[in-house]
Order: sequence, then C-alpha cells, then structure tokens
Amino acid sequence: MTRHFNFCAGPAALPTAVLERARDEMLDYRGHGLSVMEMSHRSAEYVAIAEKAEADLRELLAIPANYRVLFTQGGATQQFAAVPFNLLGSGGTANFVDTGIWSRKAIAESRHLFGDARVAASSEASGNTRVPQQGEIELSHDASYLHVTANETIGGLAFDYTPRGVRPDGVEVPLVCDMSSSILSGPLDVSRYGVIYAGAQKNIGPAGLVVVIVRDDLLERARPDMPTLFGYKTLAEGGSMVNTPATYSWYLAGLVFEWLRHDIGGLPAMEAINARKAAKLYAAIDGSELYSNPIAPANRSRMNVPFVLADERLDKPFLAEAEQAGLLNLKGHRSVGGMRASLYNAVPEAAVDALIDFMADFENRKG
Amino acid sequence: MTRHFNFCAGPAALPTAVLERARDEMLDYRGHGLSVMEMSHRSAEYVAIAEKAEADLRELLAIPANYRVLFTQGGATQQFAAVPFNLLGSGGTANFVDTGIWSRKAIAESRHLFGDARVAASSEASGNTRVPQQGEIELSHDASYLHVTANETIGGLAFDYTPRGVRPDGVEVPLVCDMSSSILSGPLDVSRYGVIYAGAQKNIGPAGLVVVIVRDDLLERARPDMPTLFGYKTLAEGGSMVNTPATYSWYLAGLVFEWLRHDIGGLPAMEAINARKAAKLYAAIDGSELYSNPIAPANRSRMNVPFVLADERLDKPFLAEAEQAGLLNLKGHRSVGGMRASLYNAVPEAAVDALIDFMADFENRKG
Repeated sequence: MTRHFNFCAGPAALPTAVLERARDEMLDYRGHGLSVMEMSHRSAEYVAIAEKAEADLRELLAIPANYRVLFTQGGATQQFAAVPFNLLGSGGTANFVDTGIWSRKAIAESRHLFGDARVAASSEASGNTRVPQQGEIELSHDASYLHVTANETIGGLAFDYTPRGVRPDGVEVPLVCDMSSSILSGPLDVSRYGVIYAGAQKNIGPAGLVVVIVRDDLLERARPDMPTLFGYKTLAEGGSMVNTPATYSWYLAGLVFEWLRHDIGGLPAMEAINARKAAKLYAAIDGSELYSNPIAPANRSRMNVPFVLADERLDKPFLAEAEQAGLLNLKGHRSVGGMRASLYNAVPEAAVDALIDFMADFENRKG
Repeated sequence: MTRHFNFCAGPAALPTAVLERARDEMLDYRGHGLSVMEMSHRSAEYVAIAEKAEADLRELLAIPANYRVLFTQGGATQQFAAVPFNLLGSGGTANFVDTGIWSRKAIAESRHLFGDARVAASSEASGNTRVPQQGEIELSHDASYLHVTANETIGGLAFDYTPRGVRPDGVEVPLVCDMSSSILSGPLDVSRYGVIYAGAQKNIGPAGLVVVIVRDDLLERARPDMPTLFGYKTLAEGGSMVNTPATYSWYLAGLVFEWLRHDIGGLPAMEAINARKAAKLYAAIDGSELYSNPIAPANRSRMNVPFVLADERLDKPFLAEAEQAGLLNLKGHRSVGGMRASLYNAVPEAAVDALIDFMADFENRKG
C-alpha cells in the first residue's frame, strides 16, 4: 500500500488515521455485526454516531446553544438555492460580496430563482487579487442578508476579517458564509454569522454531505414555496433525519472531528500547522524566479495556493514530474489554468515540504 | 469480526463481498496512492469508476440508448420535488396512484409546491392491502404524467404489473416510478417508463445517492423557476458532475453493480433468488397461527415483508430474542408497528432460512 501526497482541491485528502479506522470498522462496526453503511438511521447505534459527530463539531467550533447544526446533502451548490429560499420569506434582497467564481455561482443561482440580487462589493476590479474592505461594502436599502465566500477555492482569495452587513439605514443584516474550503482550518467566532454552510469534501469528510450552522431566529424566514428538504427549520426539527441522511458520510465526518480533537488537539493547534504550511509555500513561491502568485498578501488563502510558472510550456513537465514524485493533483482549475496546491487540514506538513523541495529542484533544472 | 443477518428496510444490508473490496481499497485504490474518497471527480481514475458504474447499470437493466442515467443526491424525497419541477413546465397536473405512505409523501410534496395533484386511484379503501388495477386508474383531463410507487417499503405492497397512464382523451402520459425499494430486484422493461428514480440505500449502495433514469425527450419539460441542481437536463449535460457528486457512494454503487453482474450472474438470477426467499417467508407466515400478513397475494412485496404477531405483547420478546440470535432490524416502521423483514438483494437466502427457523421455534415456545 502506498499513500501519495494529495493536493486535490476537493474531494480532498482525508487523514490516514481516519481512513484506517473506517477500513477496520467497514464490515463490523465495533462488534455490532454490521457496517455503519448498513445501519438504520433510526437505530440507537447510528443515532449515537450522529449525535457524537454533532457534539464534537460543536466543541471544536464552540458553537453557541442558539445555533442549530444540520447535516444535509447536495453540496454547497444546493445551498446557493436553499439560502435564498430560507431567508427571503419576508421579502428583501440578497446582497453579496463577489470575490470570485464561487461567489458568482451563488449570485447567479439567487438571481435565477428570485430575480433580484445585489453585488454589494466586488474583487473584480482588482483581478480578484484583493478582498473588498469593510468600507467598500454597500448594501441595498432592502438587503435581507449579506452573503460572502470566506475562501475562494479556485482563486485562492480569502477574507482576512469577518465582514458586517450594515444597510444604509444602519440596520445590520445576518451574515451568510460559504465556508466550504476553510471551515475547521482554525477557530471561528460563530456568533458573528447568521448562517454558515460548507460542503464536506475539503475539511470535513467525503463529498455528498453539507454542514449548515444556522442561528435559530433565522428558522422563521423561509418562503412557503420552498422544496421541503431545503428547509432549515424542517431539518432542525427532524434532527437532519427528515428523510434518510447520508449516514456513512456523516459517520466519516465524525471520525474527522474526533481526529481534530484528539490527534491534532483542536482548532488552535490545527491553525498553527496550517499557518506554517501556507507560509512556507508562499515563501518558496515568492523567493523563486519561476513561480508566482498574484494575491495581496493579507488575502492569500491558507487552504488553496494557486501559482503559475513563468513559462507555461513548463506546465506539462511540472505536472508529470510531480506526479512521478508522488505529488498528486497540482493542476489548477480548468477555468484558470496554472497550478494549485490545496493544503487542507489532512495534508501533512511533510507533503508541503516535499512539494517545496520538488519545486526548487524543478526550477534548478528547468527554470 | 461477526456479520449478523440484517433485515433493515434501509439503509440496508450490502453484499459482504462489496464491503470487503471497499475495505481493501480504502487507503490506496488499486495502486493510485489515494482513497476513492480523496480523488478529484474530474480525474481520469474517478471518471473511469463513474463511467463503469453507469455502463454496468445500463447492462443490468438493459437501459435503452434514449434514456439518460443520473447520479444525484437528496434521496427519493428530494425527487418528490424534482419530478414536478422537471415535468410540469408546460402546465398540466401531476397524477398519482396512492398505494401507501411513500405515495402520499410524493403527493403531498407535489401539492405543497404546485397546488394541484390528482389521486387517479388509491389502495386506501382496501386498507392498503391491494394495488389498484389498470381499469381503476382514472387520470385527469390535464394529466401531464402518472406517478406510481412500485413497492411500498412500509406497507409491503407492490405492483404486480406495469400501469399505463391514459387520459380520458386517450393520450398516454409518461409513467414516473419511485423504485427505491425494488430496483434491481429483477429485470425491468425500462422503455415502459418516462422516469424511474431510486434512493440508493436499499438495492444500490449507501444512503445519500439517488439514481434517476429519464427518457431524453422529457428533458425539455422543466419549469424555469427550478433550483439548478434539480434539473435532469442540467445533470444529464453535465454528466451528473454539475457540482461535486457523492463520489464515494457512486463508487460503492458501482461495486454493487459489478457484484450483481459477476457474483450473482445478472438480474434474472437475482430475481429467482428473491422469489425463492420471499415465497419461503410468506409460506412460513401463512402456515403459522402466530404470524400474519394481510396483503393480497399478488401484491405482496418480495422486498419488504411486514407481519404481525397475534398477540402484540409478544412483540418485545420476539425482537429481543431475534437480536440475540443475530437477526437484526426486524421491527416494523414506527408508523405501523409490528414486524418487517426486508429481503433486499444483499440479504442472503441463509438469512431467510435462519429467520424462518427462529420464527417457528419462537412460535413453538410462546405461541
């Protein structure tokens, strides 16, 4: 068995310790005589797994008691529709900060469904190299919430502050955040948010699961014409078991939460490792002649590090040799090209060291 | 390691051979150096897994070329919303045959979203013991499709024929079928259907995956106000990768399809085994004084066999002793009580034999 270093942007690397445990429990979960996949979601054994996962997540993120945690399906993309359905019931307009491709997908879905959507600030003029500052965010008079993308997975652009959504009349609206590619990378003040959602396939677990954290006063704002399964209130009241949830993915998420708590030692420890990994790689990029990253230093993502080679004819040999060296999935997103190294929680520091060594060696030989 | 016999209605038993393979491939998929869970859904290795799964499913069900196969999320319950969004774009009314709890959920969601929904026939007058015959199905003048539930998982009531949806003006409308708990239990004439959908967690794979089989001329009937991810046309054009799909569940479904093709020998062989399993258990029930099942023999489900004990004070000891004997998840659905033995594809004939022996022994001692 070989485990290569996997820099995939998602579905992404999972901790080897988590996969080993899933493997060992695959046919017989702790003497119960069946796989977790084969358990009724209503059984005592499974409910214990599900509740433990939620409790560990609450502990990790210090989620206040007035927030509900939902485990649902359809990826962040489905939340692009579910959020306006849940929050536009009393009218008003969805407001967005546009920081790149994922923000724009959220904006497009909101417009597709409900016509109106305001871009309250955009990174576009900067070529998506800089996140708008608080003073640049201009909400509409009828803003009902402000949506931001904490970390743009494709662009490698991340907020370095928690924005506030303040209308011209001074009223602050709930902050909704797509945190798919940065959740659990460090501690978080959940109380600053109205809704946080995150597709699992970066820092939580396997693709197909979405975690939503919603402040309970926002459960009453839904449009009545909403598909039942989109409903945060319905999901909250049904313990995310309105219908059969993605039970195995939820279990794996629980194993990841346990790993974060017990193997890593919690989110402050995880953040320190992530900061070190990212700092090393950006330093290597900035110190080279061959590699470059255009993002404003304060807004550089710790999770997704895109970079280009000075000569794009070197892209193919770079990727081929990297793969030969056991460094997988470094190709940038098809919409932007170049390279991207995703440094999620499960990517060990040794992987970053190996990548930096490879990049230096490649530059010496070809640069 | 122990593997008990698992009669769960879903998430249900999976073939031991499939779980063994998933276990062995968990940390390193066939020398690629990573888990299937960690693969980019756009990578060559993963696309090969996804395409092989679809090809095997097409082979098993002899799916005609003018049908698209979609791998999506949210369970059959999400399809209760997605179907009317996809098929009511040119107006008209959804028509339903009501055969029990799952039919009624589909009817309720259609009504919730779009107001109108016609019950073209119902099993309710028979106490849900008999499926309406073709002659009893009366569509509305403006019917746009007829929806049926092939097998009612809770009631144990199954169609013994493929209905047709014919309007009073003689026009035949597409047949839409929730096949969650009976798909792949035997051969199927897909060409009689417009849309087939099935939650995976009975005969396909783990919970969280839904398979939709849709005739391609029906891709053009969607309502414009549909959430993007519900769209059959969008999913078909994007190869079910509009956003990140439930990659690991899709892979496991592929392992189940391979098992059906190669270990079982295809759906005619699977059907023969399923017929034998069900016939044995119903014979044991009918031949006893203690156990009974009220369903009309022609409409008895081969997949879900509900039965009650003549004295319900025996329910608790029955379940406790069954579990002691390694016979798991025999409790009936909380909405109806009693017992239910689900005999999906992965439940081996030996499990049914063991259950029958246990039931006879229990009756001798307590009956």
